[in-house]
Amino acid sequence: MDFKTKTGTSSKNDIQVYGFNLTEDLVGNITLADMAFLGAKHRKPTENESKMLNALLVAICEHGFTPSSISTRLTYLGAPEAVQASIASGLLGAGTVYLGAMENVAELLQTTYQKHGDNKDTCEMAATVLKEQNEAGLQIPGFGHPVHKPKDPRTTKLFEIAGDLGFYGKHSKLLTEIHRQFCVLKGKTITLNAVGAIGAIMADMDMDYRIVKSFAVASRAVGLVAHVVEEIETGRKEGAGQQIFDYVESHTNYEVIDR
Amino acid sequence: MDFKTKTGTSSKNDIQVYGFNLTEDLVGNITLADMAFLGAKHRKPTENESKMLNALLVAICEHGFTPSSISTRLTYLGAPEAVQASIASGLLGAGTVYLGAMENVAELLQTTYQKHGDNKDTCEMAATVLKEQNEAGLQIPGFGHPVHKPKDPRTTKLFEIAGDLGFYGKHSKLLTEIHRQFCVLKGKTITLNAVGAIGAIMADMDMDYRIVKSFAVASRAVGLVAHVVEEIETGRKEGAGQQIFDYVESHTNYEVIDR
Amino acid sequence: MDFKTKTGTSSKNDIQVYGFNLTEDLVGNITLADMAFLGAKHRKPTENESKMLNALLVAICEHGFTPSSISTRLTYLGAPEAVQASIASGLLGAGTVYLGAMENVAELLQTTYQKHGDNKDTCEMAATVLKEQNEAGLQIPGFGHPVHKPKDPRTTKLFEIAGDLGFYGKHSKLLTEIHRQFCVLKGKTITLNAVGAIGAIMADMDMDYRIVKSFAVASRAVGLVAHVVEEIETGRKEGAGQQIFDYVESHTNYEVIDR
Amino acid sequence: MDFKTKTGTSSKNDIQVYGFNLTEDLVGNITLADMAFLGAKHRKPTENESKMLNALLVAICEHGFTPSSISTRLTYLGAPEAVQASIASGLLGAGTVYLGAMENVAELLQTTYQKHGDNKDTCEMAATVLKEQNEAGLQIPGFGHPVHKPKDPRTTKLFEIAGDLGFYGKHSKLLTEIHRQFCVLKGKTITLNAVGAIGAIMADMDMDYRIVKSFAVASRAVGLVAHVVEEIETGRKEGAGQQIFDYVESHTNYEVIDR
Repeated sequence: MDFKTKTGTSSKNDIQVYGFNLTEDLVGNITLADMAFLGAKHRKPTENESKMLNALLVAICEHGFTPSSISTRLTYLGAPEAVQASIASGLLGAGTVYLGAMENVAELLQTTYQKHGDNKDTCEMAATVLKEQNEAGLQIPGFGHPVHKPKDPRTTKLFEIAGDLGFYGKHSKLLTEIHRQFCVLKGKTITLNAVGAIGAIMADMDMDYRIVKSFAVASRAVGLVAHVVEEIETGRKEGAGQQIFDYVESHTNYEVIDR
Repeated sequence: MDFKTKTGTSSKNDIQVYGFNLTEDLVGNITLADMAFLGAKHRKPTENESKMLNALLVAICEHGFTPSSISTRLTYLGAPEAVQASIASGLLGAGTVYLGAMENVAELLQTTYQKHGDNKDTCEMAATVLKEQNEAGLQIPGFGHPVHKPKDPRTTKLFEIAGDLGFYGKHSKLLTEIHRQFCVLKGKTITLNAVGAIGAIMADMDMDYRIVKSFAVASRAVGLVAHVVEEIETGRKEGAGQQIFDYVESHTNYEVIDR
Repeated sequence: MDFKTKTGTSSKNDIQVYGFNLTEDLVGNITLADMAFLGAKHRKPTENESKMLNALLVAICEHGFTPSSISTRLTYLGAPEAVQASIASGLLGAGTVYLGAMENVAELLQTTYQKHGDNKDTCEMAATVLKEQNEAGLQIPGFGHPVHKPKDPRTTKLFEIAGDLGFYGKHSKLLTEIHRQFCVLKGKTITLNAVGAIGAIMADMDMDYRIVKSFAVASRAVGLVAHVVEEIETGRKEGAGQQIFDYVESHTNYEVIDR
Repeated sequence: MDFKTKTGTSSKNDIQVYGFNLTEDLVGNITLADMAFLGAKHRKPTENESKMLNALLVAICEHGFTPSSISTRLTYLGAPEAVQASIASGLLGAGTVYLGAMENVAELLQTTYQKHGDNKDTCEMAATVLKEQNEAGLQIPGFGHPVHKPKDPRTTKLFEIAGDLGFYGKHSKLLTEIHRQFCVLKGKTITLNAVGAIGAIMADMDMDYRIVKSFAVASRAVGLVAHVVEEIETGRKEGAGQQIFDYVESHTNYEVIDR
């Protein structure tokens, strides 16, 4: 055999996914989000892990109009026959600017514990992180929000659920303490945003920081379904895609280059 | 206001999604798949609807190596910094060939009832569909499978769950009867595939056929996470993406055009 | 050998592309557009073919703000590190609505000659096409334009160049005659648009209708470079992507669903 | 007016692109690649600039089977109705790994001159670059090639053309000298690859390093046309996309996870 995978395979009478029989073990027993967990950890989530993951992914699934969802709608205008292309178009903006912080927070927290071990107290560790980031000229990811000030309601809710389900662990605690000290240093309350909270909780769920962003991308794909649906429901002319384009077209000043 | 949407909006202290408060009503209460349902039907699913939808989406989420998942892995080779592009690349193949049948089945069943009403018995209706499709030179979508013969284990399982949860309705019954008559006509058992079953069950969940494929695309996005994860875990050189490319490169005959 | 291709291959000292030595025969001798021609026809274009193809692709390369170019800019906002994703996002809208007509025109003209032969005169053939399309309830592709009425300046120019270079052949003549009769039937002048003219000229260049749209997609990719460049030049805050999104965000009415 | 752009606009009788009348000034007068130049520099290229740019883009347009072109073909299998999605899928792999070096070379050379001015001699400047990169623990981009050893035939050709056309300037000279000293340091000849040469020549054409990769993406889009064409020509079953997938499917070992 030339190639190998643990993901899945099919034979005449059954389908295997990560060592499970798809129809006997998974279909009807687990949620869609659990399939992503299965891909990441190669085991089924516990009930609490499933609840936590679904909560995290629900929290970042829908944001109304965003650059991504507008892109999905504009793409739908030109290619209504290919909804997969509309959804893909919206996913393509899920890069460093909006979602990168999720990965960066998980990375910062995980590498901090790898580097300094588990024995320092959280307060001292947080001070170290702030000092190291400052010396390196780096910002702390996961802080600040243009709308939700001084609190992001998703952060509050997700940390609360994490506490109830047993995932408010050392990474979440460290981020909370970094945030507390950061606000003292700044002399004002800066938002600890949802993307930061999710990065910390995923670290506490023992998800490698390198795969954290993939979960967010999958959640976005689910959220973009609603935008395709709304374009279909409103019809082409009344749809937001066409309306936004019409507005831009009729309110653009073409700057002539003088030659 | 120039534009409008029902999808969602944010204010300083909360986020609204389809009339629900995101953190109070949805996060922690519903699953990721339910967010797609909310987008499609503008209400929360009932418990049975949520179970059914999760079962359908779990059933088509992961297939091991497919043209789509290989495309995701090949894209990851060139752009590991942009996992959203890898996942989008894999989604782009979710077109008419593999997933189109899901939409086509839902369309055939829904338009049949729109055209002929609900009063004919299923047996007569199925015969009409077969006759009409035959006269129009069209195939029946949702039949046949290269591997799962004569039964697709997902079809059996999904119809069983649909029966338990109350979604084995008139559309599923009609497809089952069309299938029965079709096999009699052909003189052999042709597979009623999972994509066909899902199209019928989604029709019985009262999903408009035009949005059925979007759900499948979202499910695929979740499934592709596992392929990105496996590429990260194996590392570049040992990853299936690189191995497949290396094999192709060393086993390709360049056909020189004689001039 | 398991796989084969005529496209190209590399060895230690040279690169072969469709039977040509890349560095000796192609680099410095042909234009970028000629590479697409080479891919399509497996030979270098003549000087006139190269001029014609470049003219066609220049004509549809840039349109200022379009749903596609706005999508590219919105994607850039979220993923400036991945310009390939921005450009891909803009390409994804190149579907049936805007560019489909190019393929449809070429198909209509090529299949008409395949079906009816070359012996009928153009006037009679055009009448046949109008009659057949009408009976089938189909529109004639390539007619109408929201801005350029009653003439599309690109159509005039491209047919003029095609005449000069020897590509105003039977397909272009037939489309012109169909257009003339169509306007008589309608009692007013409907625009013969650029996409229609390009479909006809490509048919006269002996390009199979199935590959016509690929050329347009490649041209669009070149055009989208300018939109990425302008986003980089203006900087994030002043860029059209951010400005458009900010306008949409602040002018959207969230329609609350009453429960 | 809310938005502005220099790219282009349309009115009833004409189309403006960067201050040019599209049909009068551009169509029939410039090549497709020149449109990208126009987008980048907001002026038409000189004859030599056009020749140089076409040569650079022809050089990196086609590579036979690559991860990108295989991804395009695999996507075509599932969505033959959407060739734009196939081409976009192939573009998405144009990330840091294969094309990043082009941008990195241009950046290194341009920032070196910004930092150290133009007065040092090339030999001294090259030594400085090697020293600084070494101290920062960074590799020199643009060196090394898996197949073309010790010379990349495209580098030789492109520098030769650049010399003839007046674009073998200070950036190309500096890269050549860095390469010479690097090989001396290593004690063997390392390939100066095409991507490196193109980065240097683009710097000598006064292209900002941040837009260099966009040109490469556009060139790839043109090259991918040939792969879509070959899939259409061979037909689904005989096409490389299906053949590669069939091979992978029948030569994959599913690694069962023991539970």
